[in-house]
Amino acid sequence: MTSSELETGLPSIRQIQTLIRDETEVELKLITNDLLTGKMRWQDQNCICLHDHYDQPTIVWRQAIVYLKPKP
Amino acid sequence: MTSSELETGLPSIRQIQTLIRDETEVELKLITNDLLTGKMRWQDQNCICLHDHYDQPTIVWRQAIVYLKPKP
Amino acid sequence: MTSSELETGLPSIRQIQTLIRDETEVELKLITNDLLTGKMRWQDQNCICLHDHYDQPTIVWRQAIVYLKPKP
Amino acid sequence: MTSSELETGLPSIRQIQTLIRDETEVELKLITNDLLTGKMRWQDQNCICLHDHYDQPTIVWRQAIVYLKPKP
Amino acid sequence: MTSSELETGLPSIRQIQTLIRDETEVELKLITNDLLTGKMRWQDQNCICLHDHYDQPTIVWRQAIVYLKPKP
Amino acid sequence: MTSSELETGLPSIRQIQTLIRDETEVELKLITNDLLTGKMRWQDQNCICLHDHYDQPTIVWRQAIVYLKPKP
Repeated sequence: MTSSELETGLPSIRQIQTLIRDETEVELKLITNDLLTGKMRWQDQNCICLHDHYDQPTIVWRQAIVYLKPKP
Repeated sequence: MTSSELETGLPSIRQIQTLIRDETEVELKLITNDLLTGKMRWQDQNCICLHDHYDQPTIVWRQAIVYLKPKP
Repeated sequence: MTSSELETGLPSIRQIQTLIRDETEVELKLITNDLLTGKMRWQDQNCICLHDHYDQPTIVWRQAIVYLKPKP
Repeated sequence: MTSSELETGLPSIRQIQTLIRDETEVELKLITNDLLTGKMRWQDQNCICLHDHYDQPTIVWRQAIVYLKPKP
Repeated sequence: MTSSELETGLPSIRQIQTLIRDETEVELKLITNDLLTGKMRWQDQNCICLHDHYDQPTIVWRQAIVYLKPKP
Repeated sequence: MTSSELETGLPSIRQIQTLIRDETEVELKLITNDLLTGKMRWQDQNCICLHDHYDQPTIVWRQAIVYLKPKP
């Protein structure tokens, strides 16, 4: 909640935008060691929204993300 | 405590506002691996307040939130 | 230590002030999974001070707080 | 490393100053669940320095502190 | 997401740039205790991208990095 | 990555500079509970570089440091 614009020039932000647009299936590893899989629908400064195989949304806090991996 | 206005333009903030207004039951996963369920009553920059089934409030620090899931 | 004024307009800050004034017994869940109980005596931007049943103080860093629960 | 002055007006900073001046023995609980005991010698924005019973210093990062407890 | 320029004057940023350019194999230790190995491809303020031996990318959040070790 | 100058006036920064200059062997405790030992070579705002007994470098992120202890 520190800044009000998503920095769309950053590689990480742009790659996530591409993965959202292409509806690529991804894995999100979280600091609790949870591994979520699904398709990302939107991102903002605080969160990334992931839909699972039943199209149920999970709003993930960025602070809790360890890594993101597109499924090959 | 870094900024004084809740950025109501952000998708994550707006979706939480909608979940509060609609009294949707949600799951909050925390970095301690606790999974709280209940209805959110308010949010500010630091915290989200969740009421459980006995209407008891829990003030959750945002920094400790991993993800939020509306119950289907 | 990023900002110098406690934002007394925020619901979370005000609710803590009320719990301090009313000497409400609370539970503080910490990221180490410790659960402290007692009455809060003061808060500032960095910390919350909790007194236990023997009136011994513990200065808790906000960054380590997961949730706060007034005892019913 | 976000701000350059220690905010000496804050209760938490002042109480730590008092504990340093009075050479009070304290317990520091850390996010790794370590519990250090000793006397604090100095604080700055990033760290608190603790000396153990053999007068060996440990520089503790504030970000890793969960709570501080003066020994009764 | 707090600042918009990668501070290329910092030793840590420059060393990572060198490791990217030289395609040095590295180990990345993460706060979940995962140990990733591979070659870094890019960095920005939020993330570092690592390719594994099958050339699959993993976007690692900086906040989750504990240490980086070039393989000898 | 929030500020561009290392605050060389701070006791913690200065003590680390002294430990670097004197090539003092140190222990670095990390949030993963790893305990690294070696000699520090440089610090910047984001990281501290530690060389082990085989002179292999490890770039440690400050955010992951719990405490630093000069070996007696």
